[in-house]
Amino acid sequence: MKTYKLTLCYEGARYRGWQKQGNTGQTLQEKLEGLLSRVLSQPVELAGSGRTDAGVHARKQVCSFRAETSLSCGELLAALRQYLPEDIGALALEEAPERFHARLSCTGKTYCYRIWNSATPCVFERRWVYVRPEALDLSAMERAAALLCGEHDFSAFCANRRMKKSAVRSLRRIELRREGEELRLYFTGDGFLYNMVRILTGTLLEVGLGERRAEEMPDVLSSRDRSRAGFTAPAQGLTLWDVEYNE
Amino acid sequence: MKTYKLTLCYEGARYRGWQKQGNTGQTLQEKLEGLLSRVLSQPVELAGSGRTDAGVHARKQVCSFRAETSLSCGELLAALRQYLPEDIGALALEEAPERFHARLSCTGKTYCYRIWNSATPCVFERRWVYVRPEALDLSAMERAAALLCGEHDFSAFCANRRMKKSAVRSLRRIELRREGEELRLYFTGDGFLYNMVRILTGTLLEVGLGERRAEEMPDVLSSRDRSRAGFTAPAQGLTLWDVEYNE
Repeated sequence: MKTYKLTLCYEGARYRGWQKQGNTGQTLQEKLEGLLSRVLSQPVELAGSGRTDAGVHARKQVCSFRAETSLSCGELLAALRQYLPEDIGALALEEAPERFHARLSCTGKTYCYRIWNSATPCVFERRWVYVRPEALDLSAMERAAALLCGEHDFSAFCANRRMKKSAVRSLRRIELRREGEELRLYFTGDGFLYNMVRILTGTLLEVGLGERRAEEMPDVLSSRDRSRAGFTAPAQGLTLWDVEYNE
Repeated sequence: MKTYKLTLCYEGARYRGWQKQGNTGQTLQEKLEGLLSRVLSQPVELAGSGRTDAGVHARKQVCSFRAETSLSCGELLAALRQYLPEDIGALALEEAPERFHARLSCTGKTYCYRIWNSATPCVFERRWVYVRPEALDLSAMERAAALLCGEHDFSAFCANRRMKKSAVRSLRRIELRREGEELRLYFTGDGFLYNMVRILTGTLLEVGLGERRAEEMPDVLSSRDRSRAGFTAPAQGLTLWDVEYNE
């Protein structure tokens, strides 16, 4: 048995997210496990670096699996590419140390939320952005972002109400960047709760729109109350941007 | 009656090109004339800077029309945007000098042909590129491009066999640019024949692949024989990039 590290990208629109749900065949995990099992003629279980929600895209997603095969990585990659649909790309495949696990070994992740912040119509990028043409107070958004960074209990920013495990996460960085007609929000952390990036984005947008104050962020965090945070920004604007490992 | 200049962008996949064909409703010109006539409550005839083929995209297309209306440009633009489908964007609308005509006043056009020249799968850009992962001899392609530039009879690079008008065009520049996994070919000239950019691209690709020599370009041109030039590269890789006017 060897351990493999597979790097993927995908457009999330057609899928019900990463995580397997019964046997609907509509999730990325099922789709990929099915193809790998077929190519390798053995059952394959895939671990992703994290779950992406339905409709969320990945510029770089990493997953791992174990298999027994005489195929080289190049042969296996070529076989996989032959069967993948056009909205999933296999970027790289390599052998990894035996204990490598895409989720457990992951040391950090970056998500990018893309906001089309312009009155100019968005044609070519429309599948990957959330259109909000209103004027945004970027300096207020940056003040709020700074107050949200660090190690906190992010229960107020989690859509899962029955969360039993710890909701403490370390949000290392939120970077706001203007790129042409877009405002991009990059979130880097050790892990994210269910819908966390989308609720953080919705909350920051409400600050940018003047609907709430940056200074209330510490209170929202300490309330641990989902209803105190902002709306959940739509999935299609969100992309898993990068996944880090200590090599 | 006032004359208007309308700047558009569009994704060409769903359309049978720019030029009206009977009343199919599937061309960009028909679609836009229909919407403008409805918004302005009068018949509107639209002149485009040039025809784009079925499946070809436009980052910037300019068209002109004449109408009698009390609506301001801002109001007209907003009304138009309300009705446009998501794959057509109205970028700008302004009043133009009475004699302005999008095709006749045009002083130059740039097309970009995007080749995904990499073994890495193309997921996000796939709708706008032509995938050719093979190694390409760029210096041979540049030599061929230099021989094609200038004022020539481009009959050999025209798909219309019954062309009665002059096929002489001035191709001012062909620029080859590597951008990440892409090789982009930018063609700038005063006008282009039917399929001309796609046949130029196919011919340059054959040179890059070593299937023909750069040095034969003058013979291909002087033959005026379509069968002597290369294949017609697919429409989806082509984008009308820029349109110039002397203001």
